[in-house]
Amino acid sequence: MAKNTAQVEAITNREVDFAKWYTDIVTKAELVEYTAVRGCLTLLPYGYAIWENIQRTLDGWLKDIGHENVYLPMFIPESLLQKEKDHVEGFAPEVAWVTHGGDAELTERLCVRPTSETLFCDLYAHIIHSYRDLPKLYNQWCSVVRWEKTTRPFLRTVEFLWQEGHTAHATLEDAEAETLRILNLYAALCENVLAIPVISGQKTDKERFAGAKTTYTVEAMMHDGKALQSGTSHNFGDGFARAFDIQFSDQNNQLQYIYQTSWGVSTRLIGGLIMTHGDDNGLVLPPKIAPTQLIIVPIAQHKEGVLDVAHTLQYRLSDLYRIKLDDSDKTPGWKFSEHEMKGIPLRLEVGPKDIENQQVLLVRRDTGEKIPVSMDQLDHVVPRLLDDVQKSLYEKARANREARTFHADNMADFASLLEQQTGFIKAMWCGDQACEDRIREQTTATSRCIPFAQEQISDHCVCCGKPAKHMVVWGKSY
Amino acid sequence: MAKNTAQVEAITNREVDFAKWYTDIVTKAELVEYTAVRGCLTLLPYGYAIWENIQRTLDGWLKDIGHENVYLPMFIPESLLQKEKDHVEGFAPEVAWVTHGGDAELTERLCVRPTSETLFCDLYAHIIHSYRDLPKLYNQWCSVVRWEKTTRPFLRTVEFLWQEGHTAHATLEDAEAETLRILNLYAALCENVLAIPVISGQKTDKERFAGAKTTYTVEAMMHDGKALQSGTSHNFGDGFARAFDIQFSDQNNQLQYIYQTSWGVSTRLIGGLIMTHGDDNGLVLPPKIAPTQLIIVPIAQHKEGVLDVAHTLQYRLSDLYRIKLDDSDKTPGWKFSEHEMKGIPLRLEVGPKDIENQQVLLVRRDTGEKIPVSMDQLDHVVPRLLDDVQKSLYEKARANREARTFHADNMADFASLLEQQTGFIKAMWCGDQACEDRIREQTTATSRCIPFAQEQISDHCVCCGKPAKHMVVWGKSY
Repeated sequence: MAKNTAQVEAITNREVDFAKWYTDIVTKAELVEYTAVRGCLTLLPYGYAIWENIQRTLDGWLKDIGHENVYLPMFIPESLLQKEKDHVEGFAPEVAWVTHGGDAELTERLCVRPTSETLFCDLYAHIIHSYRDLPKLYNQWCSVVRWEKTTRPFLRTVEFLWQEGHTAHATLEDAEAETLRILNLYAALCENVLAIPVISGQKTDKERFAGAKTTYTVEAMMHDGKALQSGTSHNFGDGFARAFDIQFSDQNNQLQYIYQTSWGVSTRLIGGLIMTHGDDNGLVLPPKIAPTQLIIVPIAQHKEGVLDVAHTLQYRLSDLYRIKLDDSDKTPGWKFSEHEMKGIPLRLEVGPKDIENQQVLLVRRDTGEKIPVSMDQLDHVVPRLLDDVQKSLYEKARANREARTFHADNMADFASLLEQQTGFIKAMWCGDQACEDRIREQTTATSRCIPFAQEQISDHCVCCGKPAKHMVVWGKSY
Repeated sequence: MAKNTAQVEAITNREVDFAKWYTDIVTKAELVEYTAVRGCLTLLPYGYAIWENIQRTLDGWLKDIGHENVYLPMFIPESLLQKEKDHVEGFAPEVAWVTHGGDAELTERLCVRPTSETLFCDLYAHIIHSYRDLPKLYNQWCSVVRWEKTTRPFLRTVEFLWQEGHTAHATLEDAEAETLRILNLYAALCENVLAIPVISGQKTDKERFAGAKTTYTVEAMMHDGKALQSGTSHNFGDGFARAFDIQFSDQNNQLQYIYQTSWGVSTRLIGGLIMTHGDDNGLVLPPKIAPTQLIIVPIAQHKEGVLDVAHTLQYRLSDLYRIKLDDSDKTPGWKFSEHEMKGIPLRLEVGPKDIENQQVLLVRRDTGEKIPVSMDQLDHVVPRLLDDVQKSLYEKARANREARTFHADNMADFASLLEQQTGFIKAMWCGDQACEDRIREQTTATSRCIPFAQEQISDHCVCCGKPAKHMVVWGKSY
């Protein structure tokens, strides 16, 4: 069937079935294609281009503050994975095992990396000798594999793309500073680039990364009120260093264990973009991350001069923005739907009448607002509008989060609030894991984080009534 | 042991033991580190930075001519790998097999991709319907795994990084044009960026890629006279399309099979850089690919004003070039050795006397030439020198290749030439694989390619004496 005989099909209504709406978008906006491999997706050009933009931004920031990229093997020998007890318990149940190379059975199984702490430890044990070798600020862009039973595009897949930073420091304080520095970078990436507001904080012991001393997180709320863990940064203390015997001689020539961190964000952020900003017409992308920021659609393009003007505008704006011109033989209405589905922030329409009047029509993807602009004003109006779209998307997401964030100081309120509406519950906690477990059993909500910005909701634990230690943000998660 | 108490150790003499010299450089220049995983290496920051520069260049070129990046799964189900007969025969003996996910045995084994033709075919079968969907010009940056028995850094490793392009076209002519367009890109990458002269040509049937109709190659000669296959580009015709049933409806609404290509270059190119340009002091990098193009070494840096001037020069030149300043507390002599080992094209020395005379000393890595330059001339001299180094490296490599290229028109000459010196032999061939096999048995040389630039060495096959069809370049390979 020829492509142009198909229709731009409507997607499921977002308020009716959020999950179905989501999976409609990932395929209809041509972000991914399902494959013959269970739980593994193909990232199509448009989906991969969003990831490239995330990479370019974050990679630049990481290099600016002294990080270097490396590449370590995708395989981890079983014996190496087992060196740190908590870590292997956390990951062994969900790894893929290579048992044969060609026709021969391997003497030792290799797992496909679910994360690379153990390989980085093995590397650091070889290359770190002196305090002069510290800090090591290494980062890796790669794919990892976790044998998940239930998968969902971008949110939870068997293989996914990410970056994993692994650093080594002379002191616990240096490691802690790095852990927080990166968390702030992740918050800036989410808020300033992806227009996704996040809450920064610490994970409870129960939710900590396998092998970490402290795990920090940035937590976002999606349009439906569920939480998305969007990036984590771990301080390992010297736990891995002791397990892998990684020591350096300090200024006094004394052997000391190193202190380590690791941190990562993944293609899950693309899922976050969809679920934060998308609407019933498809994806909505913040201009800073959109592969195409402005799409030019000529109207009555067969008429003399229209395509010439469209091309001139394209060349004029291409130096400053990521611009495309759609001069295909589809109807303008069809093109509008397609580019709305792909979430392109601005559409520029130009037809014979516009040319006569020396103007164009700009249309915002986020609001649908139509703005006639004189051609000679374009260079001023386009950047202002892109900036507006970026800010509005952030504010809209923030307003949704505020509207769906509640306080509870007893379990009855906690449960009934979550029954009425999915959202975040701010509630006090005594610090006891038994209460955390009970809250999950009674409400299916988990602790998202202990936010850095603490509020005093009450003085007692929402669950057991004992004196409270922290305010925790609770929510249902992806 | 503190790092600064170690010595910059001498490396093996290149003429005495080329293989040992090579492995000395890959570790002493801090390109790679060996790992606990057999045949897999860690790419350290300096090695990875070279790869990033190759990526940036080639990725830009590919995008400029319409290619898009995608990411496909790293796993291939066994049944999918087996769909194209020649392809599975070529690759099945050397793949790693995943048989377990977590604790459970898989119902179907998955191989870790050795290359992704089968996955791209499966994708194209899903997304190509009409002539309007063609061409598809997809590329992927990823790592692949081949269960090699004998491995060598960059040249042959169990896992390596590469790009693999996979394209789909409406006609065989379009596929052939794409195959050659990419081969020309690879030749330009080698010659103009890496300063590695290459011979472009076609592989014999024996050396063709498993499943390809035609394989083209760019072949380089290393300093020791051996051949390095540096990039290949394959025209598959409609062979894979028939095996995977990938059809499209043409302008007349008739179903047709698509025509496909694939092509790749890998981190092997870094091995090529080392073996083409390196010398007894270490790596020598062409300026266009060097992570650092100019290193500033202050002399007597404790003296007042020296570091200030060094920093000023660094800032002044950093806008135009990749510059570093080494203000560590090592001695200048030590620094010279380190940066020579890393192959940095230019060194800039500046000390109190230079400052008095308002000049600096530039030192070329390739020739050792010392060039005093007035500070106010730097902006003119640096680009000219970098350009000179780039060109000289290419010319030197080309001269080495010419000096080691011989003609033979009988087997006695062929064998005795190769006994005297490793190099390329240009000799005529009847086209019969029996002769190709016999040449290999008698000389260990293989056919590198049938060059596009044919010469008429004689009119008969160097092996059997029958009428010749082609001139072939023969050589010993890595």
